[in-house]
Amino acid sequence: MKFNPILDTLQTYEAGKPIELVVRDFGLSADSIIKLASNENPLGASPKVIQALKENAHLAHLYPDDSYYALKESLSSHYGVLTQEIIIGAGSDQIIEFCIHAKAPSKVLMAKTTFAMYEIYSKSVGAKIIKTPSDSHNLQEFLEIYKLHNPEVIFLCVPNNPLGECLDKTEVFNFLEQISKDTLVILDGAYQEYAAAKDKNKEIKPKELIERFPNCIYLGTFSKAYGLGGMRVGYGIAKQEIISHLLKIRPPFNITTLSLCAAITALEDKEHIEKTLQNNFLQMQLYEDFANQNGIRFIPSFTNFITYFLDKTDSNALSEYLLQRGIIIRNLKSYGLNAVRITIGTPSQNQRLFNIFKEFLKASV
Amino acid sequence: MKFNPILDTLQTYEAGKPIELVVRDFGLSADSIIKLASNENPLGASPKVIQALKENAHLAHLYPDDSYYALKESLSSHYGVLTQEIIIGAGSDQIIEFCIHAKAPSKVLMAKTTFAMYEIYSKSVGAKIIKTPSDSHNLQEFLEIYKLHNPEVIFLCVPNNPLGECLDKTEVFNFLEQISKDTLVILDGAYQEYAAAKDKNKEIKPKELIERFPNCIYLGTFSKAYGLGGMRVGYGIAKQEIISHLLKIRPPFNITTLSLCAAITALEDKEHIEKTLQNNFLQMQLYEDFANQNGIRFIPSFTNFITYFLDKTDSNALSEYLLQRGIIIRNLKSYGLNAVRITIGTPSQNQRLFNIFKEFLKASV
Repeated sequence: MKFNPILDTLQTYEAGKPIELVVRDFGLSADSIIKLASNENPLGASPKVIQALKENAHLAHLYPDDSYYALKESLSSHYGVLTQEIIIGAGSDQIIEFCIHAKAPSKVLMAKTTFAMYEIYSKSVGAKIIKTPSDSHNLQEFLEIYKLHNPEVIFLCVPNNPLGECLDKTEVFNFLEQISKDTLVILDGAYQEYAAAKDKNKEIKPKELIERFPNCIYLGTFSKAYGLGGMRVGYGIAKQEIISHLLKIRPPFNITTLSLCAAITALEDKEHIEKTLQNNFLQMQLYEDFANQNGIRFIPSFTNFITYFLDKTDSNALSEYLLQRGIIIRNLKSYGLNAVRITIGTPSQNQRLFNIFKEFLKASV
Repeated sequence: MKFNPILDTLQTYEAGKPIELVVRDFGLSADSIIKLASNENPLGASPKVIQALKENAHLAHLYPDDSYYALKESLSSHYGVLTQEIIIGAGSDQIIEFCIHAKAPSKVLMAKTTFAMYEIYSKSVGAKIIKTPSDSHNLQEFLEIYKLHNPEVIFLCVPNNPLGECLDKTEVFNFLEQISKDTLVILDGAYQEYAAAKDKNKEIKPKELIERFPNCIYLGTFSKAYGLGGMRVGYGIAKQEIISHLLKIRPPFNITTLSLCAAITALEDKEHIEKTLQNNFLQMQLYEDFANQNGIRFIPSFTNFITYFLDKTDSNALSEYLLQRGIIIRNLKSYGLNAVRITIGTPSQNQRLFNIFKEFLKASV
C-alpha cells in the first residue's frame, strides 16, 4: 500500500521510560522505582485535584463540554486575557501540532537542542528544519538565520527543555521587535512557572506578549508545575486571529472530562503550586552542590530538572547503572550530548539518586 | 498573517450540546437535564471502572506508559490479534485522523449521511469528498463510484451513525473483494457491540477482516458500549504494514493515564456490557412502539440510538421544545434531514422523553 511519502522522513518521539517498562524489564517492584525522567511533579497532583477526580469519576461516560467554557473562564481570569484568546489542547504538544498544520510552513527555526516535538511536528508537514549552531538559545544566531532564510515559524522554548537555560523577557521582546508580523513565533512556556519563581526577569506574561506581538502564541501546560502530566491538558494564548484559525483544526473532545475537571481545580490551588516551587528550588540547590562536589558541569536551570554534562563518564553507562537500581533518568545521548537530564524529585528520591550516583562515580574511577 | 489556505474550506464539528450549556442558557439545574444527544452509555461507566478511577486518581501527575502495553495486551486477547496490529487513539476519531494523514488521499468515498468527522479530517488534507447518492450505505453505489473515481480511501460505518442502519458482514466482505489492495478501507465499528448483539449477521470480527483484507483497518471505541465517552479511548486494528505507518504519526501520550486504566478495566467487565446491551434493546423496542403509535418513520437501528424522520413536524421545533424542558437530543437538520437522533436512555429518561414528545405532538396538531 502507498503512504504519504513524508512518513519516511519521520522519526518517533522517544518518551522517558515509564515505570511499567522498568518493572517488566528488570523485575523490580513498581513501588521501589523512582522516575526522574519526564519532569513530572514529584509532589503529585494537588490533593484537591485528586479529591475532585474521585468525586467526578462517575462522569467518565459523558463527553466533556467541548467549548471548555469553565476552563477558559479560569484561564482568562488567571492571565487577564479574553476567553476567545485561548485554545485548549491535549497537552501543549497538541497546540504545537495545530500551529504547524495551520501555518503549513516551508521552513521552521529552532535552537539546536530543544524540545524534540518541534522538529517532529514540523517534519510531518514537510517543513525544512533550521537550527541554530549553539545548543542553547542564542538570539543573535536566531536573528541572523531568520534574516537569511525567512522561516514562517520560530520556536522559542523559555525556559528551554532539555537544557534548562532561560532567556530574559527583555531579550525575547527585543528579538521579537525584529520579526515580521507574518512570522508565527511559538513561545513555549511549559516551565514558565518555575522560571518566574526563580527570577522575575524571566517571566513572560501572555497578555503583555500577545498585546505587543500579535504574531506570537504563548503555550502553557498543566503537565509540569500543576502536576497533571498524566491528564494531558495544555493551552495556547494568542490574539483571536490566530486562535480562530487553530480552532478550525482542533478535533472535538480533545481533552477528557476528568482532565477538564482536574485542570480547573489545579489552577485554583495556589498553595500546591507554592509548595511545588519551594521544594523544587530547595532541592535544585542540592543538585548544584552535588555537581560542584563531583566536578560535573551544569547549566543553571530555571525548570524542574537539571542537566548534567558528563565529561569524565558516559551518559549511557550512568543511565543504565541507575536504571538497574530502579532510578529512571533521561539520557540525552539521542540529542548528541554526553549528558543526562534529571527531574528534581522529593528529598528522599534525590537522596537515593545521589547515593547511587556516588557509587557509580566510585565504580567508574 | 497568512495561514494554510486549506483552513478556509474547513467547517468545525458541531458536537451534541453539553449539559453545562443548557444549564447556562436555560437556567435549568444540571440534575434535571437529560442528555440523549451524544450516544453515551446511559448506565454510565462500569462500577468497576469508577472504582479503578478513584483508586488511580493519585497517579494523575504521571505520564502514561506510552507503549500502552497493558491495554494492547488486553485488546490482543479480546480480539485474537497481535499487539503489533493495534494502535491506540484519543477516541477512534484520532485513528481516522492518523489514517487520513498517513494516506494523504486526493479522493475519499463515503455514504451521503454518515459520521461527520470523516469529511472534516479528509478535507483537512485537501481531499475531494465523494458521497453516494443514497443517505444510508448502498454498496452498489459505492462500487460504481469506486470504479469511476478510484478514491484512495473508503469509509464504511457499520453500523452507521447517525442513521443506525447496518450492512451484513457478507455484503461488506463481497464488496471488499472488489477493492484494490492499495485502497485503504476504514471500517468504523464504533457501534459494533450493539449490532453484533442484535444480529450475528452484522458482526465483523477484526481478526477475520484484516486477515482476508490486509488493506482494511477496523476502528473500535470505548466511548459507546463501554461507557467511556468522556475518557477518549479508541483503537485501530490492521495488519502491521498499516499500523507501523500510523504509529509514525501518533503523538506521544495521546491518551491519559486514567483513560488507560479505565479502558483496561472496562474491557474486563463483561457483565456491564451485557446489562448495557440488554437495556438498550429492551428500551429500543419502546422507541419503535412510540414511533409506530405516532406515525413516525424510523430505520431499524443496530446501535444505541434511533433516528426519527419527522414528516408532519419540524426537527428544529421538536429539538427546541425538548431542550426548553431539559431534554437534549440531536437535531439532524445540519445533515439536511428533517430528523432527530435520540440516544436510547434509561427507562425513566425514555419515559420522560415520550411524555414530553407527546405534549409536543399534541401542541403542534
